[in-house]
Amino acid sequence: MSSTEGQVIRCKAAVSWEAGKPLVIEEVEVAPPQKMEVRVKILFTSLCHTDVYFWEAKGQTPLFPRIFGHEAGGIVESVGEGVTDLKPGDHVLPVFTGECKECRHCKSSESNMCDLLRINTERGAMIEDGKTRFSKDGKPIHHFLGTSTFSEYTVVHVGCLAKINPSAPLDIVCVLSCGISTGLGATLNVAKPTKGSTVAIFGLGAVGLAAAEGARISGATRIIGVDLNPSRFNEAKKFGVTEFVNPKNYDKPVQEVIAEMTDGGVDRSIECTGNVNAMISAFECVHDGWGVAVLVGVPNKDDAFKTHPVNLLNERTLKGTFFGNYKPRSDIPNVVEKYMNKELELDPILGDKQSF
Amino acid sequence: MSSTEGQVIRCKAAVSWEAGKPLVIEEVEVAPPQKMEVRVKILFTSLCHTDVYFWEAKGQTPLFPRIFGHEAGGIVESVGEGVTDLKPGDHVLPVFTGECKECRHCKSSESNMCDLLRINTERGAMIEDGKTRFSKDGKPIHHFLGTSTFSEYTVVHVGCLAKINPSAPLDIVCVLSCGISTGLGATLNVAKPTKGSTVAIFGLGAVGLAAAEGARISGATRIIGVDLNPSRFNEAKKFGVTEFVNPKNYDKPVQEVIAEMTDGGVDRSIECTGNVNAMISAFECVHDGWGVAVLVGVPNKDDAFKTHPVNLLNERTLKGTFFGNYKPRSDIPNVVEKYMNKELELDPILGDKQSF
Repeated sequence: MSSTEGQVIRCKAAVSWEAGKPLVIEEVEVAPPQKMEVRVKILFTSLCHTDVYFWEAKGQTPLFPRIFGHEAGGIVESVGEGVTDLKPGDHVLPVFTGECKECRHCKSSESNMCDLLRINTERGAMIEDGKTRFSKDGKPIHHFLGTSTFSEYTVVHVGCLAKINPSAPLDIVCVLSCGISTGLGATLNVAKPTKGSTVAIFGLGAVGLAAAEGARISGATRIIGVDLNPSRFNEAKKFGVTEFVNPKNYDKPVQEVIAEMTDGGVDRSIECTGNVNAMISAFECVHDGWGVAVLVGVPNKDDAFKTHPVNLLNERTLKGTFFGNYKPRSDIPNVVEKYMNKELELDPILGDKQSF
Repeated sequence: MSSTEGQVIRCKAAVSWEAGKPLVIEEVEVAPPQKMEVRVKILFTSLCHTDVYFWEAKGQTPLFPRIFGHEAGGIVESVGEGVTDLKPGDHVLPVFTGECKECRHCKSSESNMCDLLRINTERGAMIEDGKTRFSKDGKPIHHFLGTSTFSEYTVVHVGCLAKINPSAPLDIVCVLSCGISTGLGATLNVAKPTKGSTVAIFGLGAVGLAAAEGARISGATRIIGVDLNPSRFNEAKKFGVTEFVNPKNYDKPVQEVIAEMTDGGVDRSIECTGNVNAMISAFECVHDGWGVAVLVGVPNKDDAFKTHPVNLLNERTLKGTFFGNYKPRSDIPNVVEKYMNKELELDPILGDKQSF
């Protein structure tokens, strides 16, 4: 039993008091975990575009003050009532979406969109009692994505914690709690390219590089990276990208360029930009008969995906994925093992790391 | 060896001399089969909307005179050079699309869109020499879909003939050469509903009824038929349809009606109308996390399929199919076996039959 169990912990956190205003390092109070909750000491956290997007609070309900952060690694400090899967000292990755293991989605082998703990960007409190576990001088501070990892300690629902191999380096594997798994899973779990196949990756940011890494692991022979920024190609080569297409260099739609390069289209494509035109190109560049396009990037609210139905009738498949179809508790520990077994390349993907 | 082998056969055929004008029963000449071709005595043929559509010749290049017809059953009369799979006396179903067994599509387990023999509505002659095998007093008559079954004898590429069990009743199984297999295969090969699942069928014509039959065979518990014509429900019950939804009876989109009936959406949907709005409804009525929508119906040339990308990102899948993903030579004989083994219900689907 840790000396802090059952006590309020006072620690430092980066608090966002107002939309778009600089985060302030404050001393905050973190209440003990309640039923099915776990209090976690965060050792490493990274910054994701999603944090920035909700910090800017353009286009969604502002919820402030709030503690952001959702890509992180930490160690269990104490657990609340009913928690049997985790104990103090366990190494965990908090995940922005959860797995209750009880609902139809959790019981389906195909879905990871848990009814209880699916990502909810509008929720700023814990499910158990609708209250926050963070406060500053008694004033509640909202949670973000059920994780709020920009704090030395945070409280997370047990369903949003992946228990991982304690010998895994938390400063590296923390990135597996969000974008990297999203890209990797899009390829390995959804697109499923076969050995020797041809794969196009739209967008060579971290998610796209992870998707390319998934294609490399799958044994794809040609991995075509598509990006408007040619400086990304060198980095992408480390993840198996063999060819680069910059749509700006052509007068015709990029799907036509790719079809010409590949005798009719790629076997699989993965769209990691969220741009709706890239989505359409990613779909239309797959080969008829067997091509599968997987959408990963999150679009704008008013976007419409549009294509001629014959593109579908010619036996193309269009799928989307959320968090690479990984179930956080069941699957993410295995992704960490992939890294530990050197099946999965992560080191070159990492940019700046930040620790408290 | 038949007495007609190598000879021109004179027989009756229903010739379409002009777009939209009544077919005329004429005595025509049918030349012997050339390399990789087979001459077939047609015993039974049915009429499909596609025949009518091309006979009307609205919106496509008119090609007349022409002999229509593509759903049929017959017996091999003679074979041309290089044909080893078939011999005189074999029972066959001519199919509007083919399987060369050599191209990338034929070698892929996922595709049936043969590079050489894929449906081609613009072609009115044989591939071997670009000439027709039909004539009337020496004037060439065009072929249709490589089958032209509105004739007592026709010449077909060997790749477009399914060799079937000779004890199968040709007057019944002839319908397996087109729409019925299309609907059945859409469910069995592409949607693949699991036992106990919920399936929506859009459009309860022959193709839709065959799709429903596929759902029944798969063990679906709820099969929801969607049609604007309520008189179709009674017929549909024979193919396992358990519930009926008429979109005209509701003020809201039918996808919302279905989502309410099914706690969030059906597991699978199959669209058999070709109406682009029905396609969108069929896609949006599948459950997030695992729902699969399969498009079967052929749309208008200028239609656009349109949906919000989030419907895909929530782990829905959208696929299209051509001829139910069946390979004509490899798979259709097995569909006939399904009928012979009483696994597949066909009798109530049949309307008027016509034989020469």
